Amino acid sequence: MSYPEQFEGFMINELGKYRDFKKQSFKPKKFGEHDIDIKIECCGVCGSDVHTVTGGWGDAPTPLCVGHEIVGRAVNVGSQVKDVKVGDRVGVGAQVWSCLQCPQCKTDNENYCPRKVDTYGAPYPSEVDPSETISQGGYSSHVRAHDYFVFPIPDAIPSHLAAPMLCAGLTVWEPLVRAGVGPGQQVAIVGLGGLGHFAVMFASALGAEVTVISHSPRKEEDALKLGARHFVCIRDKDWAKPLAFRFDLVLSTADVLQTSTLQDYLSTLKVNCKFHQVGLPDEPIKDLKPQQLMSNACCIGSSHIGSRAECLAMLQFAAEKRICPMVETIPISEKGCAEAIEYVKSNKACYRFTLIDYDTAFGV
Amino acid sequence: MSYPEQFEGFMINELGKYRDFKKQSFKPKKFGEHDIDIKIECCGVCGSDVHTVTGGWGDAPTPLCVGHEIVGRAVNVGSQVKDVKVGDRVGVGAQVWSCLQCPQCKTDNENYCPRKVDTYGAPYPSEVDPSETISQGGYSSHVRAHDYFVFPIPDAIPSHLAAPMLCAGLTVWEPLVRAGVGPGQQVAIVGLGGLGHFAVMFASALGAEVTVISHSPRKEEDALKLGARHFVCIRDKDWAKPLAFRFDLVLSTADVLQTSTLQDYLSTLKVNCKFHQVGLPDEPIKDLKPQQLMSNACCIGSSHIGSRAECLAMLQFAAEKRICPMVETIPISEKGCAEAIEYVKSNKACYRFTLIDYDTAFGV
Repeated sequence: MSYPEQFEGFMINELGKYRDFKKQSFKPKKFGEHDIDIKIECCGVCGSDVHTVTGGWGDAPTPLCVGHEIVGRAVNVGSQVKDVKVGDRVGVGAQVWSCLQCPQCKTDNENYCPRKVDTYGAPYPSEVDPSETISQGGYSSHVRAHDYFVFPIPDAIPSHLAAPMLCAGLTVWEPLVRAGVGPGQQVAIVGLGGLGHFAVMFASALGAEVTVISHSPRKEEDALKLGARHFVCIRDKDWAKPLAFRFDLVLSTADVLQTSTLQDYLSTLKVNCKFHQVGLPDEPIKDLKPQQLMSNACCIGSSHIGSRAECLAMLQFAAEKRICPMVETIPISEKGCAEAIEYVKSNKACYRFTLIDYDTAFGV
Repeated sequence: MSYPEQFEGFMINELGKYRDFKKQSFKPKKFGEHDIDIKIECCGVCGSDVHTVTGGWGDAPTPLCVGHEIVGRAVNVGSQVKDVKVGDRVGVGAQVWSCLQCPQCKTDNENYCPRKVDTYGAPYPSEVDPSETISQGGYSSHVRAHDYFVFPIPDAIPSHLAAPMLCAGLTVWEPLVRAGVGPGQQVAIVGLGGLGHFAVMFASALGAEVTVISHSPRKEEDALKLGARHFVCIRDKDWAKPLAFRFDLVLSTADVLQTSTLQDYLSTLKVNCKFHQVGLPDEPIKDLKPQQLMSNACCIGSSHIGSRAECLAMLQFAAEKRICPMVETIPISEKGCAEAIEYVKSNKACYRFTLIDYDTAFGV
């Protein structure tokens, strides 16, 4: 069977065997009146995909099709869908459903709905889908999502560049706008990878003076090209001292966070400002003392993607400001998926991969 | 020799031997044109005193006179002092000096000045005092402090009640007002001790609906008496579940913080709200994962006392709202100091001790 009964995807059958993608069929959730089916054109490769298929973040159901930076064309829309019609170019990020009833959902915080369904690896609530289907991601022919989580893509943004905005972009956009980043502010971005390079572009386009903090001196050129004004290498002795009380926000996109380095980051914050960690290390922070937060009344926070309202605003902003992420493309296939995961895992991405050529893999 | 060449105090000569207070003389810093000498009338006993003399917070210089909730009368004022005259009733909290030049000092954040001098156990910078005298606290006949850190006490507040406001009160007042606590807000206070009982009184007088979270069911009556609307005991199974996404601020005044319980506290926060820890445990938080902060985009923060502006506002508010802390008094003596420390250490204070009868110990 094929669409619409079954979708096809490149799937992992055992966590840890993260190179063993197999082209398989899977059954999507029951089609609902708010659902949209999207024939996928391309999908970004996210650090989350890597942490999931390697098992670094713990258990996940298999067989699993990852991918949550999806762009394609609507091919079927439910009876209650208002803003999308068949043929529209649309995107889906890391969330495909929420209750839309709870206080979080009603305040543009549906990304914090306790009943939210992630784009892959999450069971649908039984009242939405009686067989509690596990959601499957975008390394696949199609995706089915609630229209609240389907975003029209502005014409100015090519699909392979829009795709990585839908998770990587939104994940850094949300903390930047919620912190009110703008002109006159000093913002540090820790780590220049997929998330980091979006954070530099967005923060500087929002008007802040951006400093990139990286362990890798070779990133300096790109940092400045992307809009940073300053570059600091944490391998330099006492790098943090001249930056004491400098930043209004330190946004860490690195997925490694050592307790010793954390103290340095915290020391660079102005009074009452935040160290915001969106990179998600496999290892916990060891031995955090509240005393470490006292000398500038700083805090440590995190967040989870962003809301629909924020995603639409980000796409609009990206279109207007001509935000152009640095994205390499790989044709999707069993080998292509494995390669992309391997590149991202070994930090070789500069700075994001998008899987393309879906028509070749799945047919027109 | 005695005042003004030497002050007398009840001092600890070896950290860990926290009951061995000895009445000894010590030399104050060189008198400066902004200094005020205060003949002490009473001094609160703070958890900091306990953590310091037991050695729980690490090393400190000895011999040491602790105490940083000081009320007394000005007996000598420097030539540049404007707002205090000899005979005025004034207070000193946990800080006696800062540079007053740095960006922190210039923005009412002098409590975060990197060069700040704590009321006891801290060396003065050499340009302020060439012999880099170690500051000594208020279990003593007199204290000498920069006038910026000397606060007139409103007539409506008796000295023995004003004293504990100067550290315990201010330590919780600052995070409450910086979080904008007021009508319509839900605030949780974790721990009902010296700090906690101030936090309940202040938060409810500011107009918030207050929930006390405690490990001790016997605290319920006092919690409600102090102004709390709700009381939750963390020994109750699944206590946190009905409180998910409830609070605008969780202010933890407990000086024990287990990683497992922390997760429960975090789960009670609204999206983008803060768990603020002002109790300072001897032990660090083990194994904190940024993922724990993701499901409601919460953050973990701390702070250090408050600014002069906040202290003056707090005293005014306390006078107007007739804030009446629950304070027991103990006459100061070698035995009295040991007893007070022992009571606070074993959590027997309900809820604060003030050392009094200074004239008996040190003469009129």
